[in-house]
Amino acid sequence: MAKPVLDFWYDFASTYSFLSAMRIAPLAEAEGVTVRWRPFLLGPIFQSQNMTTSPFVTFPLKGRNMWRDMERLADEIGISFRRPSVFPQNSLLAARVAMAGMDEGWGEDFTRATYVAEFSDGRTISEPGVIADVLGKLKLPVDATLALAQSDNNKSKLRAQTKQAQKLELFGAPSFTTADGEMFWGNDRLERALRWAKRG
Amino acid sequence: MAKPVLDFWYDFASTYSFLSAMRIAPLAEAEGVTVRWRPFLLGPIFQSQNMTTSPFVTFPLKGRNMWRDMERLADEIGISFRRPSVFPQNSLLAARVAMAGMDEGWGEDFTRATYVAEFSDGRTISEPGVIADVLGKLKLPVDATLALAQSDNNKSKLRAQTKQAQKLELFGAPSFTTADGEMFWGNDRLERALRWAKRG
Repeated sequence: MAKPVLDFWYDFASTYSFLSAMRIAPLAEAEGVTVRWRPFLLGPIFQSQNMTTSPFVTFPLKGRNMWRDMERLADEIGISFRRPSVFPQNSLLAARVAMAGMDEGWGEDFTRATYVAEFSDGRTISEPGVIADVLGKLKLPVDATLALAQSDNNKSKLRAQTKQAQKLELFGAPSFTTADGEMFWGNDRLERALRWAKRG
Repeated sequence: MAKPVLDFWYDFASTYSFLSAMRIAPLAEAEGVTVRWRPFLLGPIFQSQNMTTSPFVTFPLKGRNMWRDMERLADEIGISFRRPSVFPQNSLLAARVAMAGMDEGWGEDFTRATYVAEFSDGRTISEPGVIADVLGKLKLPVDATLALAQSDNNKSKLRAQTKQAQKLELFGAPSFTTADGEMFWGNDRLERALRWAKRG
């Protein structure tokens, strides 16, 4: 029998997606669930709901609590967390590179390393130099990979993935979707989403 | 040594507060934490952030997911859940009655029974007849209790409690606050809030 599958939708601008990206692999392994990593862009989805930026910026009290909550949760799972000076960050380049990497087998590692650059090291991932550093650490050819990420074919793949997210009615990240049409929103639903996919 | 204390802030309009109200007593007992039940009104807090209604109404995709999420979570803890025809409900009367009940020792029971009327039975708790039914089931004198709830003294207590919530920078419900100044937002943070209070 084929292993059950869970789709993991994330945006590189999303703080709670960082936590899920760092947690999901061992949890999925333990449940016997295959994860499909699905970078997408929340920007167009927010815009279609008349939101011009993250709710954490629009509602400062919510934002302040989110940063404290991130500190507590990162501490709980033993990962380093630093609030970047820019939030939310433009995640387009990172999402394109991750998209390209999924076909080539290094997409997961790139995703984790980019989130660490952003939310553990506090770097600005919209800067190509930061992405180049991440690619270098992963021993990937920087120029060729950036060219691949910016190719028309890869750009349209990311657009299609974001369209699919919209069709699935995703409104935030991280989100998890199952083959039988369930959608779970938020890092705090990760374990439940995996169990749901497993019992499928 | 005095038992550690956790303040549990809830609004009767809030779906996730219903789940916390049904879960908190045995969990707190197990952790040895005393819970202070604190009804308050989210309305003025939303208004001060230029929100005219619940985010679950303003953002329909978020709302749709919330109702499904409530079904799943209620199922998980074995409580009956029904989406009421009115959402969000005007929670003023229920909050006033709960406030009066806290001093008299029946506030917790009233809170749970009112949430059950609203979210298990789908009734409209802004209707005095529904609150009267709840009071009747708890064997409380209906007219005298409603009069007490609507007294100037009790009204100003609820106003003061809502002001305190604002001062604590609460922006949603349920929220949990500890003696050392931590604030946890959301039913999914209940267990962590209790552990924090305990180690406090």
